[in-house]
Amino acid sequence: MRIALGLEYSGTAFTGWQSQPGGRGVQDALEHALAVIADAQVGTIAAGRTDAGVHATMQVVHFDVGALRPDTAWVRGVNSNLPSDVAVLWARPVAGDFHARYAAVFRHYTYLLSSRAVRPALLAGRAGWYHRALDVALMTEAAGALVGTHDFSAFRAAGCQAKSPTRTLSTVSIAMMGEHIRFDFCANAFLQHMIRNIVGALVYVGAGKHSPAWVGELLAGRDRARAAPTFAPDGLYLTGAEYDAKWQLPPTLRPVVLPLG
Amino acid sequence: MRIALGLEYSGTAFTGWQSQPGGRGVQDALEHALAVIADAQVGTIAAGRTDAGVHATMQVVHFDVGALRPDTAWVRGVNSNLPSDVAVLWARPVAGDFHARYAAVFRHYTYLLSSRAVRPALLAGRAGWYHRALDVALMTEAAGALVGTHDFSAFRAAGCQAKSPTRTLSTVSIAMMGEHIRFDFCANAFLQHMIRNIVGALVYVGAGKHSPAWVGELLAGRDRARAAPTFAPDGLYLTGAEYDAKWQLPPTLRPVVLPLG
Repeated sequence: MRIALGLEYSGTAFTGWQSQPGGRGVQDALEHALAVIADAQVGTIAAGRTDAGVHATMQVVHFDVGALRPDTAWVRGVNSNLPSDVAVLWARPVAGDFHARYAAVFRHYTYLLSSRAVRPALLAGRAGWYHRALDVALMTEAAGALVGTHDFSAFRAAGCQAKSPTRTLSTVSIAMMGEHIRFDFCANAFLQHMIRNIVGALVYVGAGKHSPAWVGELLAGRDRARAAPTFAPDGLYLTGAEYDAKWQLPPTLRPVVLPLG
Repeated sequence: MRIALGLEYSGTAFTGWQSQPGGRGVQDALEHALAVIADAQVGTIAAGRTDAGVHATMQVVHFDVGALRPDTAWVRGVNSNLPSDVAVLWARPVAGDFHARYAAVFRHYTYLLSSRAVRPALLAGRAGWYHRALDVALMTEAAGALVGTHDFSAFRAAGCQAKSPTRTLSTVSIAMMGEHIRFDFCANAFLQHMIRNIVGALVYVGAGKHSPAWVGELLAGRDRARAAPTFAPDGLYLTGAEYDAKWQLPPTLRPVVLPLG
């Protein structure tokens, strides 16, 4: 039987989603907890392979299991075997051809940036930081060049293993909320470090170091070496993935809700 | 010279505000960082002595120091000697008779409660949790009995060292924000565990275990043994203190804000 579940986690204490030899991936924690309930080894596949320090308000996962358990066992039972910074939000049996990664049509991420003179303390590990004021209108203008289907090599990590650098970025929206700036991204998929590199470039524009047109030039140049620094993982949140309605999943999108001081 | 400063911290890793022999109080971290900049021992006094695990969006502190330093040294210099979960927001010289604790006319606290079936993972350590739906209207009705000047013995910790159990609670407001409930409190001062005990009682009312009138009866009974359990420190935030305008302080209130969707 194939089960889908929605997962929330703080990435601070983990080496990223993916299972690691040292066992410090979120996947390791989840597969350990699932094995306790299933009474057998369980392998999982996720919608987004988040990097070290990256959080998820909604990670969609599927796994196959022989054991028959009530849905609540995959939520409450698994949660009682997970560390405090990881929790299953829902679980449901799905069709055998559902695939959390390949069936995802869109991925959503949010980058939360503290824009103030002093580094964030209450949100240490939960928000990026830039110490100077940023112009949201300029950043929004610059982001316009990124929307659409493009070769995103300029914003790709050196170690990125994707076969193609082409992605379709559906939306970028940037909003000022008190002393924080929230960047929301939706794409069919993302390259490694793509959002953190884009945020780095947009911040350079917002701070007046480059004109908005520079971001479009970076994109066209396809040269990572010319771009701005990669921003910290601290502010990055996977907020969900979209799937065809035929899979009859519970909500798979969950916007960032954080108490901001 | 007397200096006032505003401090933000996550209380998760600390034994509370107060200096401890083991050195794990927020006060220890701050006094260590101040000593580096002052080149001398520095003693500090705070508006609110927060307990272990309790956070502050704004803690007001004063200290006396012989060394003359620019205000920025007490912010940027001190911050570079503080751990990542503590930060000075502002610092300013004040009159020699200013006192962060005794001059505070009102204290403000917020309790953030996750009200959902699954324990909070992303907000682990940052929010309390109750697994059932809560009726905000009933809790607000119950809270009405607490506003005013009362003997709060029913909501006082066994170890509370205050000479008098009488406090003046100016306001309690309760708001539902998505899957979170936010309780805001303002009083001249608070007894130890007073807010966490009040939240415990209000949650019992919100869950239908007791009528709203029960909270007024608890208060009148002045008997801690009859009350509800003390809620976790995780959701409690000191959000500032109010002072007479004559002290000419920068803003000393900083609300917890939840940005939704």
